[in-house]
Amino acid sequence: MNGTLYGVGVGPGDPDLITLKAHKILQAAPVIAYPAPEVGDSLARMIAAPHIPQGRREIIIRMPLDPKRFPDRTAYDNAAAEIATILRGGEDVAVLCEGDPFFYGSFMYLFSRLHEAFTVRIVPGISSLMACAAASLTPLVARNEVLSVLPAPMAADDLRRRLESAEAAAIIKLGRHAPKVYGVLRELNLLDQAKYVAHATLPGQQVRNLRDVDPDEVPYFAMILVRKAGMAP
Amino acid sequence: MNGTLYGVGVGPGDPDLITLKAHKILQAAPVIAYPAPEVGDSLARMIAAPHIPQGRREIIIRMPLDPKRFPDRTAYDNAAAEIATILRGGEDVAVLCEGDPFFYGSFMYLFSRLHEAFTVRIVPGISSLMACAAASLTPLVARNEVLSVLPAPMAADDLRRRLESAEAAAIIKLGRHAPKVYGVLRELNLLDQAKYVAHATLPGQQVRNLRDVDPDEVPYFAMILVRKAGMAP
Repeated sequence: MNGTLYGVGVGPGDPDLITLKAHKILQAAPVIAYPAPEVGDSLARMIAAPHIPQGRREIIIRMPLDPKRFPDRTAYDNAAAEIATILRGGEDVAVLCEGDPFFYGSFMYLFSRLHEAFTVRIVPGISSLMACAAASLTPLVARNEVLSVLPAPMAADDLRRRLESAEAAAIIKLGRHAPKVYGVLRELNLLDQAKYVAHATLPGQQVRNLRDVDPDEVPYFAMILVRKAGMAP
Repeated sequence: MNGTLYGVGVGPGDPDLITLKAHKILQAAPVIAYPAPEVGDSLARMIAAPHIPQGRREIIIRMPLDPKRFPDRTAYDNAAAEIATILRGGEDVAVLCEGDPFFYGSFMYLFSRLHEAFTVRIVPGISSLMACAAASLTPLVARNEVLSVLPAPMAADDLRRRLESAEAAAIIKLGRHAPKVYGVLRELNLLDQAKYVAHATLPGQQVRNLRDVDPDEVPYFAMILVRKAGMAP
């Protein structure tokens, strides 16, 4: 019988923000796999480190950081082939995913290659969305409000239009797009309702009012939360 | 010194989908509080049951199910006063929240009453959004797609407009609004890209293609996930 492929959300960074379910699967899985940059450590592997017993077999999926070369389809093809061989041998493989596997996760590149041939189970994780709201003490969304999750690379006009119709928004993947986002929020008079969170739950966590942030110094793992409505009475 | 108020996400239903952090806080907190219907058991309390030691003091916040009477401001005023007394006495209070405290959570009604006077810490939880995506093996959103979270009570026209501009959407709080939502998705030719999940990770979990669901028989704790783009290559 084939093994099972687990997509395991390891949460946003704090190793204690992993679920008991993920912890149990990582204790049991004979093989783990995870994405990593071309050079250096894997964030997912670092988050999960306290939960992985010594001596597990590990498949490292090295990815270029250059957005022009991402995703590297050959790297995923090769990783999927290696994982398929292990699954056919009857062993389970747990793939570590930062945050949640199905919320902007790179796990989908393995999922799309393997889910037709093998049993896949997803263990949901704490996403950066909820982690940033918690870290900044900013309720994301309440009652019948609409929440929009907006990746910052989109065009300024599109971002403006979507922010106008949103009651609450999370603008993600900021990095070099932060000055554009800052400008749009200023035009819409939303700077005072905007919270900035970088590296939520990690040692370098930063929580600020957006007005106090230099938009030229914003990392990729940062998010802006906007909520137009006031706090509930 | 005052105690700390914890808003603890207990996840969508499976007791193993609680975080280690939430588990530790529930082990330590001398007092827990949680919402419950006017008659009957609290879902949040049932989810967290395996993690709560015997003999804890418990504050039950009883709420009307009638949407015309919800939220019951008097009930939250009274609960906040009771919790404030305990915090002033130097003890911590952990409030159990289904899913995530700041994602459509009723915890915000306590947060708004208590966060100025007391230290509040939020422990993020697995939300129904990620749980439904995992249960239905449906990636929520990828790359630079926009995700819209749409509460079903909104007007059909508003829902249609928002679905037209969304790349991926989660339609939540279905219940009696399901026939209207079904009609809008049919008009937009999105029925075949719509997954239905009810009671995710609970014993009564249902996962179906929306076409196979009777919209007149949909509970409140159900969600429709729509994703227009195909799977990543």
